[in-house]
Amino acid sequence: MALIVQKYGGTSVGSAERILAVAERVKRWRDQGNQVVVVLSAMSGETDRLIGLARQIQERPEPRELDVLMSTGEQVTIALLSMALSARGCPARSYTGAQVHILTDSAHNKARIRDIDAARVKADLDAGRVVVVAGFQGIDELGDITTLGRGGSDTSAVAIAAALKADECQIYTDVDGVYTTDPRVEPKARKLARITFEEMLEMASLGSKVLQIRSVEFAGKYKVPLRVLSSFGEGEGTLITFEEDAVEDAKIAGIAFSRDEAKLTVLGVPDQPGVAHQILGPIADANIEVDMIIQNIAAQEALTDFTFTVHRNDYARALEILEASAKQLGARQVLGDLHIVKISLVGVGMRSHAGIASRMFSALAQEGINIRMISTSEIKISVVVDEKYLELGVRTLHEAFGLDQASTA
Amino acid sequence: MALIVQKYGGTSVGSAERILAVAERVKRWRDQGNQVVVVLSAMSGETDRLIGLARQIQERPEPRELDVLMSTGEQVTIALLSMALSARGCPARSYTGAQVHILTDSAHNKARIRDIDAARVKADLDAGRVVVVAGFQGIDELGDITTLGRGGSDTSAVAIAAALKADECQIYTDVDGVYTTDPRVEPKARKLARITFEEMLEMASLGSKVLQIRSVEFAGKYKVPLRVLSSFGEGEGTLITFEEDAVEDAKIAGIAFSRDEAKLTVLGVPDQPGVAHQILGPIADANIEVDMIIQNIAAQEALTDFTFTVHRNDYARALEILEASAKQLGARQVLGDLHIVKISLVGVGMRSHAGIASRMFSALAQEGINIRMISTSEIKISVVVDEKYLELGVRTLHEAFGLDQASTA
Repeated sequence: MALIVQKYGGTSVGSAERILAVAERVKRWRDQGNQVVVVLSAMSGETDRLIGLARQIQERPEPRELDVLMSTGEQVTIALLSMALSARGCPARSYTGAQVHILTDSAHNKARIRDIDAARVKADLDAGRVVVVAGFQGIDELGDITTLGRGGSDTSAVAIAAALKADECQIYTDVDGVYTTDPRVEPKARKLARITFEEMLEMASLGSKVLQIRSVEFAGKYKVPLRVLSSFGEGEGTLITFEEDAVEDAKIAGIAFSRDEAKLTVLGVPDQPGVAHQILGPIADANIEVDMIIQNIAAQEALTDFTFTVHRNDYARALEILEASAKQLGARQVLGDLHIVKISLVGVGMRSHAGIASRMFSALAQEGINIRMISTSEIKISVVVDEKYLELGVRTLHEAFGLDQASTA
Repeated sequence: MALIVQKYGGTSVGSAERILAVAERVKRWRDQGNQVVVVLSAMSGETDRLIGLARQIQERPEPRELDVLMSTGEQVTIALLSMALSARGCPARSYTGAQVHILTDSAHNKARIRDIDAARVKADLDAGRVVVVAGFQGIDELGDITTLGRGGSDTSAVAIAAALKADECQIYTDVDGVYTTDPRVEPKARKLARITFEEMLEMASLGSKVLQIRSVEFAGKYKVPLRVLSSFGEGEGTLITFEEDAVEDAKIAGIAFSRDEAKLTVLGVPDQPGVAHQILGPIADANIEVDMIIQNIAAQEALTDFTFTVHRNDYARALEILEASAKQLGARQVLGDLHIVKISLVGVGMRSHAGIASRMFSALAQEGINIRMISTSEIKISVVVDEKYLELGVRTLHEAFGLDQASTA
């Protein structure tokens, strides 16, 4: 007998019919002798509907009240799933985030979980019930309703799994696992049976949208075995594991990419201490996150060029701020480029295998893809290239590293 | 400065536009120096939408889960109204029933309020905030969400007013007060400036649907001054008061009626002790409420006829039960009539003024309306007549007692 936490996303509970299908699946797990806790999102579209309603009332809705409003979405699905389970002779009880004391900080709309009181859930499980918990929501110390932000239901599930010391946390979604890359870009992309937490973290932060990054961090921190699988088909999905040995022995797990990049360059700034801070300080003050940073030493004079990337949504504001600081610094020129993308190779195998970077660069060069920026960490190499090379670049690397060929999984 | 509890029903908060109008009204009361607590229903149609959703999942939805589901309706409106108030520079906070500890028993879907912890509400009021509370819902001792049943938001408002010792509880609705009778039946019906609690209770229990009867009982028990008024127009509405002297000095407050009646008769049962119990016991066991009861002594033999009324919805079941007991009793025949209505004259003035009953009967007789049953209490007289006489009967009595003429209000 295992204790399983299952999380179903918005599309999995998007209609009465789909909720009934989820109930069948949950019942099957329970009938096999498992204790099951289910964490649910709102029906797909519901959160947007509620936000739309709020915007009719107030252009920028009061964050505390927006949480009161949005948290109703999951409350609807937990009630409906519990009914569906009861109707199938499977005793079930639903709980809101407040009812199982998912204690968060008070950062409305993007709260972080601090603690969970698992006593009530455990009592129900021991009484043979399935427990259905609203994802995405909690309460703060004042008893006010909070939400965790988009994708927060994954985090709820992992946090509950951690509090219950569950044997596995299963994230049911509309894809059947983690792939070597996005199959819409490379049809030869292959589903991974296993991936390490570190790799999954890099994949998530580099643009793979299968799991919300915070939930992966949380699972890593509390050592919760995580599995991604499809709520529509069968199959084992992808297990995210701590055991590097257990992972396929390929050097590279996959290729992530992001289209949300923009590049900014200041040309001809004085090459003196404090310049980087003078350029990036005002950007940080505006709450704009900077990803890659490169500083080149210019050939002539004591001048340097400074380049960095930001999220495409922040481009216009960053450019404005940068032009002001460039003027103060006496820089020669500010350049911007919205038409770039980032492609990243991820794999724990990089640690022990040399030559991966050069193989990556040479494969791209052979296709005439010019690399604009490079950034590396222990288990990933990211390059910035022109937007038009995204698909070609991903497919080239996918083939160069033999990702379409299953190793002994 | 007064402490006012205002309750707005589903049609008053039925759209973003209407919620904004409610916010304007609430703000006006607050700007006049009052402390204001607002109790809201779900948007009109929302509760039915949610029940429809539940029925797609389970024919007879699990009562506990139905409450989890339905309580989201008010949670949406309290969040939206608080936003609307904030947007107008009027600080506000919303609370669910659970958050202000509206403690109820555990009778899901029809729970009764036991206690309210007003501390948090008071603290907010003292801090200058408007407090917006979800009507219709509470929690039981286990922390499970409960609902009070249809119309329960009125009861929530009255209970909160009682707990806060509010100066007035204002029930905003789609009519502008309590009328001498339903204006759709008698266009000359006149709005009452005041009515006593006893009269209001009789009016509510006899078919006037302006206020939910339980909320009137609650207000009477806790001495909460209650006012019914329109959320669309202006005007003072109708005050429900304890002071009989303050009420218009008319003998009769109004005329209530009910189309939901059905009559059952057993002919020729033995006139012996225990017969009434043998007839009505099985009816009560089936949870069917009996309203009027009449027993006539038959002329010949030791036989009697026994007649009673039930809600029209219970007619078929009651008839079935009655036919079984009639057989056992050896009764001659069972008769049923679905085409009857009840018309009632209500007024505290009856206590001190004789001759009201005879004036009522004679007015009806003059129009050829045959009275089938009569039942009286200290402040009301009800008659059962054929359905076809409903409108004529109401208008006849309205005129006979001069209800269209305002006395000194």
